[in-house]
Amino acid sequence: MTDFQPAKGTKDIAPDEMRRLLFVFDTCRKVFEKYGFVPLETPAFENFELLAAKGGEGVKDEIYFFKDKGGRDLGLRFDMTVGLARFIANNPSIQKPFKRYAFGKVWRYDNPQAMRWREFYQLDIDTIGSPQVEADAECLACFCECLDALGIKNYYIRVNNRKLLKAFLASKSVPEKNMDGWFRTIDKLDKIGKEGVEKELLEKGFDKKIVKDVLDNLEKVSKNPEKLKNMEGYQELARLIGLAKAYDISEKIKFDISLVRGLEYYTGLVFEIGIKDLKISLAGGGRYDKMIKAFGGPDLPATGISFGLSRLILYMEEKNLFNLPKNIVKVFVANVDESSKEYAMEVAQELRKCGITAETDLMGKKLGKQLEYASSAGIPFVAIIGGDEIKQKSVKLRNMKTGNEKMVKIEKLADMLKENE
Amino acid sequence: MTDFQPAKGTKDIAPDEMRRLLFVFDTCRKVFEKYGFVPLETPAFENFELLAAKGGEGVKDEIYFFKDKGGRDLGLRFDMTVGLARFIANNPSIQKPFKRYAFGKVWRYDNPQAMRWREFYQLDIDTIGSPQVEADAECLACFCECLDALGIKNYYIRVNNRKLLKAFLASKSVPEKNMDGWFRTIDKLDKIGKEGVEKELLEKGFDKKIVKDVLDNLEKVSKNPEKLKNMEGYQELARLIGLAKAYDISEKIKFDISLVRGLEYYTGLVFEIGIKDLKISLAGGGRYDKMIKAFGGPDLPATGISFGLSRLILYMEEKNLFNLPKNIVKVFVANVDESSKEYAMEVAQELRKCGITAETDLMGKKLGKQLEYASSAGIPFVAIIGGDEIKQKSVKLRNMKTGNEKMVKIEKLADMLKENE
Repeated sequence: MTDFQPAKGTKDIAPDEMRRLLFVFDTCRKVFEKYGFVPLETPAFENFELLAAKGGEGVKDEIYFFKDKGGRDLGLRFDMTVGLARFIANNPSIQKPFKRYAFGKVWRYDNPQAMRWREFYQLDIDTIGSPQVEADAECLACFCECLDALGIKNYYIRVNNRKLLKAFLASKSVPEKNMDGWFRTIDKLDKIGKEGVEKELLEKGFDKKIVKDVLDNLEKVSKNPEKLKNMEGYQELARLIGLAKAYDISEKIKFDISLVRGLEYYTGLVFEIGIKDLKISLAGGGRYDKMIKAFGGPDLPATGISFGLSRLILYMEEKNLFNLPKNIVKVFVANVDESSKEYAMEVAQELRKCGITAETDLMGKKLGKQLEYASSAGIPFVAIIGGDEIKQKSVKLRNMKTGNEKMVKIEKLADMLKENE
Repeated sequence: MTDFQPAKGTKDIAPDEMRRLLFVFDTCRKVFEKYGFVPLETPAFENFELLAAKGGEGVKDEIYFFKDKGGRDLGLRFDMTVGLARFIANNPSIQKPFKRYAFGKVWRYDNPQAMRWREFYQLDIDTIGSPQVEADAECLACFCECLDALGIKNYYIRVNNRKLLKAFLASKSVPEKNMDGWFRTIDKLDKIGKEGVEKELLEKGFDKKIVKDVLDNLEKVSKNPEKLKNMEGYQELARLIGLAKAYDISEKIKFDISLVRGLEYYTGLVFEIGIKDLKISLAGGGRYDKMIKAFGGPDLPATGISFGLSRLILYMEEKNLFNLPKNIVKVFVANVDESSKEYAMEVAQELRKCGITAETDLMGKKLGKQLEYASSAGIPFVAIIGGDEIKQKSVKLRNMKTGNEKMVKIEKLADMLKENE
C-alpha cells in the first residue's frame, strides 16, 4: 500500500496548533481593525513576470514556478506585498490612505530545515498612499498593541532610515558605486558580528581606513543619532521617534544605523522587531515607495510590517502564553442506552442553542466508554441521560474533575454550566 | 509600462467582499465549535500521486499540476478532503471520532466563466471514525445551524443513500455492470429534466422498458420511501430521518432517490443543500467510507459536508443578509493644524485602548479635507482637536449624520462613543 506523506517541505497544522494560529490571528485582527485596517486577499499565485518584477529573474530558483495549461508562467506568491502592490496598481482610484491587513500562506523554495518550511503563514499590515512618517508610526503602534495583546513582553523595535545610512556612509567617503556592497554586508552585523563584517568588507576590496572608520562609529552613532542631524533621512527618523512618544511606544524603539533589512525594495525607514536576549526577529518592515509605480500603478508611497507567525507562535509556546483550554467542548451528553440516545441529542442541541459547546456519542459506545472518552478528551462535564432522567426531565451532571454528581433539571442545565466557566 | 493583472481565472477579494467572507467564516466557526469540531489545515499542494488516488490520473487535466525543483510531481489541492484523509492515514491513532473544520482556498483548472473561478474558498466539516448515521445527522444539524445563524431561510436538504438507489435499480432489473452508467445519468435529473435523462439512458443503449419503469417510479418512491423498506440502505436513511427529528431539522429534509452526487468516492448517504425556487446547490456531502484506507490508512468510515462559499455569499448579498457597517471605524480624530497632530494621535490611541476603532490623519490634510475624508469613508463621528481643545482636555465631537457638534471632555469621550453604537 502506498504511504502518502505531505509534499516535501510542507506540513499539516494539527488542531492544537491551528487553534493557536487562529488565536493569534483573531487577536491581531481585532487590533488591526481598531486602527482602521481592512482585509484584502489576493491570489495564491501570480503571473511570474510580476513576481520577477519584485524579486528579479533569479527569484525563479526560490519559488514554486509552474505553467498553466495555456502556457502562462506562474509562481506561488513568496510574500503578500506583491499582490497588494498589484491590487493598488489595478485599482488606482481606491481611497487613500489604503490600510489593509492580510493573513495567508506564502511559499518559498528554501531548503527545509528546522523552523523553515516551504509553506508558511504570514500576517501583514500595510498603509498605501501616505508619504508621511505618521503612517510608519501608526503601523509600529498597531504592531506593538498586537504583541501586548498576545502577552509578549521584552520586545524591542530596531529602526533605521536607509537614506540616513547612505548619507552616513557617504560622509565617511564611501563611493556611491560601493553602497550596495556596503549595505549587504552591514546587514549581517547581528549575525556575523563586527569582526565578520570587517572581514567581509575587506574581502570585497573596500578601503581599509574607511572600513575601520565606519565600523568604529556605527555603534556611537546609533547611541547619538543627533550627530547625524544634518544628513538626509535624519528628519524622518527624528519624526518617527517623536511620534513614538505620542503613541507611548518610545521605550520600545531603538535606533540602529546598521539595520538594513535585506530586501532591496525598501526605500527609507526600516524596522525590525526582536525579543531581548534572543537572536530572533519576529517581524520586519519599512517603506517601499517605488514598488507600486514599478508595477504599472501610480507613484504611491507605501509602508508596512510583516509578521513571521511560526517564530511568534513557537516563542509564545515556550513562554506559555497560550491559555487555551485543552478541549473547547464544555459538556458531553451521554446516553445510558440506545433508548435515551435521541433524547441526549435533543438536550445537546438545546445547550448549543444557549451557546454551550456540547458533544454526544457518535460511536455507539456504552456509557462507561462514553465517560472514558469525555475524560481522555478533557471535557469538564458529562450530562448522563437514562430512562429516569427522561421521566424527570433532568440529567445526572458529573463534574469530571471532582467526580461529584447531581441531578439537574433540563431547564436549569445551561445556566448551571455557564456559571462554571 | 507593463500592465500586471491577476493570473487568468483568479481574482482579488477586495476589502468589502473579504469582510463578508470573514463574517461567514466567523459565524460558521462559532457554530462548528459548539458541536466540537476543531480546525485542521493541510498544505495547499500535495504529491500528485495522492491527488490522483482520489481524482484518477485524468485529474491532471483539471488541476494545477507542477514539479518542484527536485522533480517531484505536485498539484494544488482541488478540495480539502484529500488532505484530511491523508492526515488521518498519517496519524492513525488520533482520537476518534475526529471532527474537524477547515476553511481555505482550493484550485481547479476549469474554464473560467461567470461564478466559476480557478481559485476559490471552501468551508468543510467532516467526522472521521464513526460508522453511525448519528455522525451524518450531526453534520447536517450543524450545517443547518450555520445557515440559520447566517439568516438564510428557504433552504432544504435533499438526502439519499446510494446503496438504496442501487438496490432500487437492481429491483427494476438494471444489471450490475450498467449501474455506473445509470448513476451518472440520473445524477443529471435536476439539470436536464426527466426527458433529458430518458434520452441519455436510451442513448447509452439501456433497455427501454426498464428505463420507462425506473423513471415512472423515481418520484413516487421519493415521496414514499417506505416502499423500499426491505432494500439495502433503507435502514440508514430511515435512521437519518428519525434523527433529524431529534435535531429539529425534519422539515428541512427531503428524500430524493435520484440524488447521486457526482463524485465516485461516496459510499452511502449523500446530501445536497439547496434554496427553494433557485436551481443552486449551496453545499453537498456524504459518506466516503473507503478513502482513508485507499490512502494507506486504517479502514475508517468518514462523512462530511463542504460549502461553496462564492454562491452562498452571492445569495446572501442578493437577499441583503449582510448587515455590516460601511466602515468599521467609529471615529476620526482630526487635527486643526500641525501643532495638534500629536495630541490627536494620543487621543485616538486612548480610544483604541477602550476598544473603539479610531483613525487619524496620515496624509497631512487640512481640517476641511480630513472632514471630507471621514464623510466619504462613512465614519460616523469626527473628534476635532485644536489648541483650545488641548487646553480644555476636550474634543469637539461632530456627528457626521446630523452635523451636530458638542464639546466633550476627553475622559468621557470613549463612553459617549460607546453609547452611540
